[in-house]
Amino acid sequence: MKKKRIGILTAGGDAPGINAAIRGVAKTAILEYNMEVIGISSGFTGLINKEYIELKESNVSGILTLGGTILGTSREKPYNKKQIQDAIDKPQIIKNNYHELELDCLVCIGGNGTMKTASKLSQEGLNVIGIPKTIDNDVWGTDATFGFDSAVSIATEAIDRLHTTANSHKRIMIIEVMGHNAGWIALHSGIAGGGDLILIPEIPYQEDVILKYLAERANVHKAYSIIVVAEGIEKPKKEKAGEYIAKLIDNKLGYETRVTVLGYIQRGGTPSATDRILATRFGTYAAELISKNKYGQMVAIHNQNISSIPLSETSGQSKLVPADASIIKKARKIGVCFGDKQYAKLKDMY
Amino acid sequence: MKKKRIGILTAGGDAPGINAAIRGVAKTAILEYNMEVIGISSGFTGLINKEYIELKESNVSGILTLGGTILGTSREKPYNKKQIQDAIDKPQIIKNNYHELELDCLVCIGGNGTMKTASKLSQEGLNVIGIPKTIDNDVWGTDATFGFDSAVSIATEAIDRLHTTANSHKRIMIIEVMGHNAGWIALHSGIAGGGDLILIPEIPYQEDVILKYLAERANVHKAYSIIVVAEGIEKPKKEKAGEYIAKLIDNKLGYETRVTVLGYIQRGGTPSATDRILATRFGTYAAELISKNKYGQMVAIHNQNISSIPLSETSGQSKLVPADASIIKKARKIGVCFGDKQYAKLKDMY
Amino acid sequence: MKKKRIGILTAGGDAPGINAAIRGVAKTAILEYNMEVIGISSGFTGLINKEYIELKESNVSGILTLGGTILGTSREKPYNKKQIQDAIDKPQIIKNNYHELELDCLVCIGGNGTMKTASKLSQEGLNVIGIPKTIDNDVWGTDATFGFDSAVSIATEAIDRLHTTANSHKRIMIIEVMGHNAGWIALHSGIAGGGDLILIPEIPYQEDVILKYLAERANVHKAYSIIVVAEGIEKPKKEKAGEYIAKLIDNKLGYETRVTVLGYIQRGGTPSATDRILATRFGTYAAELISKNKYGQMVAIHNQNISSIPLSETSGQSKLVPADASIIKKARKIGVCFGDKQYAKLKDMY
Amino acid sequence: MKKKRIGILTAGGDAPGINAAIRGVAKTAILEYNMEVIGISSGFTGLINKEYIELKESNVSGILTLGGTILGTSREKPYNKKQIQDAIDKPQIIKNNYHELELDCLVCIGGNGTMKTASKLSQEGLNVIGIPKTIDNDVWGTDATFGFDSAVSIATEAIDRLHTTANSHKRIMIIEVMGHNAGWIALHSGIAGGGDLILIPEIPYQEDVILKYLAERANVHKAYSIIVVAEGIEKPKKEKAGEYIAKLIDNKLGYETRVTVLGYIQRGGTPSATDRILATRFGTYAAELISKNKYGQMVAIHNQNISSIPLSETSGQSKLVPADASIIKKARKIGVCFGDKQYAKLKDMY
Repeated sequence: MKKKRIGILTAGGDAPGINAAIRGVAKTAILEYNMEVIGISSGFTGLINKEYIELKESNVSGILTLGGTILGTSREKPYNKKQIQDAIDKPQIIKNNYHELELDCLVCIGGNGTMKTASKLSQEGLNVIGIPKTIDNDVWGTDATFGFDSAVSIATEAIDRLHTTANSHKRIMIIEVMGHNAGWIALHSGIAGGGDLILIPEIPYQEDVILKYLAERANVHKAYSIIVVAEGIEKPKKEKAGEYIAKLIDNKLGYETRVTVLGYIQRGGTPSATDRILATRFGTYAAELISKNKYGQMVAIHNQNISSIPLSETSGQSKLVPADASIIKKARKIGVCFGDKQYAKLKDMY
Repeated sequence: MKKKRIGILTAGGDAPGINAAIRGVAKTAILEYNMEVIGISSGFTGLINKEYIELKESNVSGILTLGGTILGTSREKPYNKKQIQDAIDKPQIIKNNYHELELDCLVCIGGNGTMKTASKLSQEGLNVIGIPKTIDNDVWGTDATFGFDSAVSIATEAIDRLHTTANSHKRIMIIEVMGHNAGWIALHSGIAGGGDLILIPEIPYQEDVILKYLAERANVHKAYSIIVVAEGIEKPKKEKAGEYIAKLIDNKLGYETRVTVLGYIQRGGTPSATDRILATRFGTYAAELISKNKYGQMVAIHNQNISSIPLSETSGQSKLVPADASIIKKARKIGVCFGDKQYAKLKDMY
Repeated sequence: MKKKRIGILTAGGDAPGINAAIRGVAKTAILEYNMEVIGISSGFTGLINKEYIELKESNVSGILTLGGTILGTSREKPYNKKQIQDAIDKPQIIKNNYHELELDCLVCIGGNGTMKTASKLSQEGLNVIGIPKTIDNDVWGTDATFGFDSAVSIATEAIDRLHTTANSHKRIMIIEVMGHNAGWIALHSGIAGGGDLILIPEIPYQEDVILKYLAERANVHKAYSIIVVAEGIEKPKKEKAGEYIAKLIDNKLGYETRVTVLGYIQRGGTPSATDRILATRFGTYAAELISKNKYGQMVAIHNQNISSIPLSETSGQSKLVPADASIIKKARKIGVCFGDKQYAKLKDMY
Repeated sequence: MKKKRIGILTAGGDAPGINAAIRGVAKTAILEYNMEVIGISSGFTGLINKEYIELKESNVSGILTLGGTILGTSREKPYNKKQIQDAIDKPQIIKNNYHELELDCLVCIGGNGTMKTASKLSQEGLNVIGIPKTIDNDVWGTDATFGFDSAVSIATEAIDRLHTTANSHKRIMIIEVMGHNAGWIALHSGIAGGGDLILIPEIPYQEDVILKYLAERANVHKAYSIIVVAEGIEKPKKEKAGEYIAKLIDNKLGYETRVTVLGYIQRGGTPSATDRILATRFGTYAAELISKNKYGQMVAIHNQNISSIPLSETSGQSKLVPADASIIKKARKIGVCFGDKQYAKLKDMY
């Protein structure tokens, strides 16, 4: 019987743990199910250009701890409308190349955008498995994605550093972390880092609440405050989140305020233990699905169990922080303010 | 109305995140529920000797990131039979002091042993809340305990370091991690660290399997192997786990082998972001239970939700690794050996 | 005989290791020389306002590892001319308070600005010892200052993270690090982090050289480049260093470029082992000088030996990177470009 | 003119920074001096067996941050007498292969043993350059070696972790670090980590002093003590250093004591920024020497300047900690005990 032959690609922004997932898919496919595996370069671009390498067990041995992706990635979205108006029909090229490469399945590791593309390719008849990855934790249909734990760890460590300098200078320190639509990184690193004020896109803030809260902290002799801001909060166009809040505080309260934008160091470097394990489990499960000819699925984790959902159910949705999440309610009780009216009245309590 | 007054103690081995839990209980109790809080020194010893301090919000501000416990801990087990034969009736003293200190509730932060004591005190009429903590992850009745994620991170980082030296010298490196009854740390750090052979108490190993597996790895030109061993695996009395396995390999295969015993550095230092969040949520929930007069409970997490179970249900049980856990099955598929017969036959596959 | 009584203050920007230095001074003064020690709050502000605490050995035990300064700091410069025109004569107040507090010596921990103030107070008759600290490594008269090694470590770790994401996306990543006048952090972290192009204030860059170098790298199939920029490089006013270089590359070459501004996380957090040792040696030596009534000195390190120089020799000078430093010459030989004409012609060599 | 052709080998125990040194030699040789470079496998074993690979710039690009050695290492000592009695004349084979490989120079990266071999090969007519590396910092003739700063950082971080658990349990924690003849790691990590008692081979300890010191600490209410022990201190044969001291304390004082043996994690993992810079400078300088036909030298650093000394001057010597080193005198003044009579009498001072 002909060996199954699968292709793996990684698309969208990189995240710690991608290589662990590639390794999980490839090792399981090769060692357990005796499949052939190719690694496609630079996301869908590589599938369009037929750029790939054969992956043996030795190619994926030792990559567990590496950040980034050994396959490279790109932002190529083959179904993007502007591109379809081009002479080149990218989805058709992809389908042709899928068959020319004699693939039995295409494993797509990526975020919401990649799952959308994967879903369309699946609808058009390709065998596709999606593996969700993102530092933003906003992939719909799974409790968790690898990359998020690493990003939260990095952001938390950065906040730890800001505490000592904030305290020495009695300053307000603002840290802006990633999260355009979803505030998961800000929420988790904010609580883990002992942030006082946490601003996320899902909870609209009121400027007077922020100012009142900070003034009350000063009144109860809190020498400094740490503010964690997701980049995607409401703000005037062209303004940056952290700077905007800093100017607000400076103008209205005159408190000394400094901004740090954490940026790309959130997505680089070796993955955390948690992300390596999750990525490994995801990758292995993807190979299991292929061995059972169960295609058109996105690997997911629900209540600690690895399972999958149809790719068709994921498309076009983001998993946002519920404004009434238990973790938010609990954070409010220890004095954290989210910029809305439900903040603790500090002066009565300290 | 009289303010509620609660006492917090920490007992048993220390774990990263205890201070975050103390802070969660105390901040919520003070800021949200207007309670009084005392911190009892050195576990049940402090309650026997009435050694404690009042905890204000300022006392617990800034302790989120600290390892260990600001209250101190001890191994004192007041219901230990040998001690009851003593003239001193420790449980009675504890009950008397509980009333003399005018406590409305005692919050006990500890592992399985502490939960057992907490349960007995609850049965004898005290209002008690248990908060589970252990690096070993073996507290029955909760999916997770804080301390575990930090310990796994530390162990994984250590394994990462061993890879480079193992590879340079083409050696077998053995790392012995904590876990007397439960192999959780070895299992998770082993998979996260890319361990080749993982030995845990829950899966009896066969010496010939270990030897065959290592010989096969050498045959397929794997230049080195990493072995992760829980301290509690089956072995001759007086032998230490890592050394025992090293001698076996040295005697039978003659491969150059080195042992590292990770020891106490697994339980010290600043908690991981994950542990800080879990400890904060546990602590806050404990205060919520007290506000509702819901006593005799151990705080727990199930499927990401914080809840509680009766202390009476926890006593005397340990949560062990199920030998057929999904994570173990997946690890086998990428070539990890657990020392039993179900190991991958490498020579056929590479 | 009356015990000697000394005051310690910390001024200017905070740096990892200040607490280790405070501990070194205080422990030596108390344990070895039987002096009394007070800790003055918030730099010279605390001396003006007579805000201080007595420091016992127990107050400085355990602070070795803490970032920031337990005494607080401020930017107060008592000899600032604008302030002298005020009704308040701050230097006179400081001298009065020095005597009212019955001090035999004032230990000033700070950077170039603090050493200048310390020197003036010394000239006006106070017994003063300066201990240099700065992450920027630009204090004149000493080979090294604590804080620098920690800052370089943090910046290097950040660069490490950028490599993986740069490689995955085949992007140019720019990291802007601290250094207004002196490029020490950029130079050291740039070499340690494997930066390709390093721009520091001491070596004027030419835009065409930068562009040519990056284009040549692309031509020899270097998939990405890492650029490390000190914040103080030549650039149009109001522009920020990293963004300015990014725009240049984007406009002229069209390469995808991303900027990270490391900011305040460079100066916070626990000091490196090297900085703790240097700070401890500095602190201990300061107490030794006081025991010998040798005042008006700044503690320094030359060729690994701790010694001191007269405060009068330090004033108003910064220690800059010599453009012909050995480390720069060596970096050029492995292909690093500093933006000037002496860059390696890559195309001939690869 | 024929290109120069050089071989690089790495011998002895691995240390963080070796790859940075290989990269420094190779990049400089290739990019600056237009030489050919080969990498010899597994130390002198590879030269005996003629196992090597050609090194291009691309082979050494990206290895700066990797722990271990990409070339592999071995303990092979070709001049070992026992081996010379063998039929095989290894030095002669090495010389033959040196010529067969058409080498113009052999670069040997290693510790004292490797420098000894390098010196002999140099005396017998080969062109040899030595680059010193060791985590132990005991190579004679250079102020510093790469690997040491990384090892001290790792050991210090481990001691930091022990503090929190020691304090929680009011225990004595002993940490045994590497150092057979030289106590550099114990000395530096002990001071950086706030160790109370530091035992190194160069300062003979007295058991009664240790016991008295620990008892005095307990008397002045120091709740715990941290002891840092070099593995090579005086002790009964077959005993291990840390365990031996623990038994002493347990038997004579009855204090609760725990031992951690740090082991191989001291030598693995990514090198510190300091070690990467030093290794890069060493490597580049080695290539410079070759370009000038200046052979028979060991690269060294003296007072921050890179230079070299004749290999003949290094053989058979170790650089030990001077018992009267300035750093030791200073540590004594802050209350650190080295196990000898010159310890601080604590009771008089606190």
